[in-house]
Amino acid sequence: MNKIYRANILFTKEKDRFEVIENGYVAVDSEGRVVGVAPDLAMLGGEDAEVVDFGDKLLIPAMNDLHVHAPQYRNQGLAMDLELLPWLQNYTFPEEMKYANPSYAERPYRRFVRDLARLGTMRACVFATVHTESTRLLMELFREAGMGALVGKVAMDRNCPEALQEPVGPAVKGMEELIVESLAFLSPQSSERSAEPCLSPQSSERSAEAWRDGLVRPIITPRFVPTCSPEMLRACGELAAKYRLPVQSHLSENRDEIAWVAELEPQSTCYGDAYNRYGLFGQTPTVMAHCVWTDGEELALMKRNGVMVAHCPTSNFNVASGMAPVRRFLDEGLRVGLGSDISGGHDLSIFRMMVYAIQVSKMHYQQDHKRSFLSLSEAFWMATKCGGSFFGQVGSFEPGYEFDALVIDDADLNYDNYSLLERLERYIYLGDDRQIVHRFCRGQEITL
Amino acid sequence: MNKIYRANILFTKEKDRFEVIENGYVAVDSEGRVVGVAPDLAMLGGEDAEVVDFGDKLLIPAMNDLHVHAPQYRNQGLAMDLELLPWLQNYTFPEEMKYANPSYAERPYRRFVRDLARLGTMRACVFATVHTESTRLLMELFREAGMGALVGKVAMDRNCPEALQEPVGPAVKGMEELIVESLAFLSPQSSERSAEPCLSPQSSERSAEAWRDGLVRPIITPRFVPTCSPEMLRACGELAAKYRLPVQSHLSENRDEIAWVAELEPQSTCYGDAYNRYGLFGQTPTVMAHCVWTDGEELALMKRNGVMVAHCPTSNFNVASGMAPVRRFLDEGLRVGLGSDISGGHDLSIFRMMVYAIQVSKMHYQQDHKRSFLSLSEAFWMATKCGGSFFGQVGSFEPGYEFDALVIDDADLNYDNYSLLERLERYIYLGDDRQIVHRFCRGQEITL
Repeated sequence: MNKIYRANILFTKEKDRFEVIENGYVAVDSEGRVVGVAPDLAMLGGEDAEVVDFGDKLLIPAMNDLHVHAPQYRNQGLAMDLELLPWLQNYTFPEEMKYANPSYAERPYRRFVRDLARLGTMRACVFATVHTESTRLLMELFREAGMGALVGKVAMDRNCPEALQEPVGPAVKGMEELIVESLAFLSPQSSERSAEPCLSPQSSERSAEAWRDGLVRPIITPRFVPTCSPEMLRACGELAAKYRLPVQSHLSENRDEIAWVAELEPQSTCYGDAYNRYGLFGQTPTVMAHCVWTDGEELALMKRNGVMVAHCPTSNFNVASGMAPVRRFLDEGLRVGLGSDISGGHDLSIFRMMVYAIQVSKMHYQQDHKRSFLSLSEAFWMATKCGGSFFGQVGSFEPGYEFDALVIDDADLNYDNYSLLERLERYIYLGDDRQIVHRFCRGQEITL
Repeated sequence: MNKIYRANILFTKEKDRFEVIENGYVAVDSEGRVVGVAPDLAMLGGEDAEVVDFGDKLLIPAMNDLHVHAPQYRNQGLAMDLELLPWLQNYTFPEEMKYANPSYAERPYRRFVRDLARLGTMRACVFATVHTESTRLLMELFREAGMGALVGKVAMDRNCPEALQEPVGPAVKGMEELIVESLAFLSPQSSERSAEPCLSPQSSERSAEAWRDGLVRPIITPRFVPTCSPEMLRACGELAAKYRLPVQSHLSENRDEIAWVAELEPQSTCYGDAYNRYGLFGQTPTVMAHCVWTDGEELALMKRNGVMVAHCPTSNFNVASGMAPVRRFLDEGLRVGLGSDISGGHDLSIFRMMVYAIQVSKMHYQQDHKRSFLSLSEAFWMATKCGGSFFGQVGSFEPGYEFDALVIDDADLNYDNYSLLERLERYIYLGDDRQIVHRFCRGQEITL
């Protein structure tokens, strides 16, 4: 046992209810994993251990952001009244081009990583750009910060400005470079623990389990079907299979895009199937952003293949995409996490995403009364345990989970005998980074 | 000339565009009214005046909140996953009952007024409770703070807990007490300036113009049709006419409510007409909150009578009411301001309401493409000049306007050569109270 923390502990094992332990204890081992959580010290066998006492503060799992574009951070909260196309052409693409120069990238990337931490997000699925060098820099910045990230060098070779297109050959070379380098960061320990025989960079057989020991890892990232030729999609699928790497992309964000994909990939039964045919849809762990219009065949395929949804409610509002049927996804048993989707989304806080996710579900409820809206515990579960599941055992305080946690000092919001659950709800709705007084990722305190 | 301020000045004369004056000047007279605004000092004839220099900061009109329930402040961000009825029964009404005791009211009311100012709102249309004494206290707290408010002692005498019902007789007596007391606060100056012969408390003929000199004034506040008997509505209408006082209430927030009103007031052609028949719908300046389902006859009546809309987008999401057709209201020429509607809304910041209002308009746009979504200048205009018009000449820096202003130090958000308009947009989307470094209401600096 390494550390024991005492505080008011709240988390979600199941989506339908909170675990609430007033003045409880959580024990964490030297590898940063939770040993146990209990209302008294004796139950943890920790009578002799040193206890870090957070008093009346709240201790909750840290946030997980399942979809965010790091190179769009400079554009956060900008050009929000442009339509999608002029927005891409005048803001998004010109900004991404600048990341060809890593010395340009450093300042916004550093700020991005710091602000994620500041707002309580300890793990993120991140789109970088097509540029290998600045993607490497972003991975280094996450490592330096001690935070968890799946970082994707973006693959695209058509239907975007030429300066952002990279042919399949160099794209694969760049991705493979970053993959092999990342393998070197896996601790020797991890290869011992792994079921796989060997994790030397030379081995082409990787175990997803072993990858988990790397806090910062590559993720295969075709931007989306319209910007990737069939050859690029095939190459991405092959890399994912070869290195057992996860996959992220965009899916069914808006109706025009869906029609376009149907033209580009006429043999596919649905947009999702266009990824599926190339081994990019659940063959390895896969998260798809948006899914605003996912239904029927596509929903069934996601379910069958265990593809996860990154729900990005503010982005879907800002870009006028629509309102994703998240409650339906949960009812169907899909795993759903939350994404800020900077800079389609304007807010980097996953706490704000919980509020928006509930609001979106309320508009579906208002419109058809078919399904109840999301409860607070469901939104919290998506932000923590369910979202965290894409990174490993992350997002809960159950034994074996990595200790990713936030300590919330809500004294300024808690002025009037609120219950612990009310305090948490008020923090989610009203709080911001000012109340986050400690941050932990895999057991280590993260300083800003 | 009293004061000249120098800063980067942004405001909206018209809804369709911003006025942007880089390193400009605004001159304010000793009564707190804008004398002029210009790019250089000479144009203001102020070469000899003392200039307060805010350097590279932004100077914008302060926010106006057109709909907020002060006694629900303790419940802000609470019970957001309850349906409307249990929420009213378990949270809203029990909390309002406590305001029978002014010593209970003081702490939350003081916090409410301070937080309004903290977030940059200098004027608000406020619902208090049925209790005369704590309503008086709330008015005093606004006066003490130097802020502008229209404060309503709430009228209700049916369809709510008995403890919150007040019969017509005592209700009118209480309202009239507060009105007469407020008249005493009007400066002697104001009665001189007024076209009306006399503003002594004894006079029953008041001029709306004269009332404007009181920063804190009463507003006639029938809660909504279902909780007000015809006698109560009639009495409210008579008081409004007698004292030339403005009116606020709720209108067409959700479909069940509309059906209920149709039952209660069968002779009315629409919900709005139920107010209209009692002189509560534009006979004096009137603002109606929500109007989510306002259409046809009701919309025409609002237009004809000049009734203003308080658009409360977060509340409409949280309470699952729906999405108000704000862009349509603007196209039809209705005046629309923004309201936080605490605690149906969870956020007291009118900057956040701008973001939500744009998002709501984007969902309408996404659904039918009939009307474009709101531009940033339109949202800003609703929060400032249009919303402010309910309080007098408030919300702009045009000559004659009361100088209600915020100084924004956005250095932490402005790290990369943003234009002034981009800086304002980023502040609206990303900023919070931390960047507001000065607040002015009618020319006076407001301290927290």
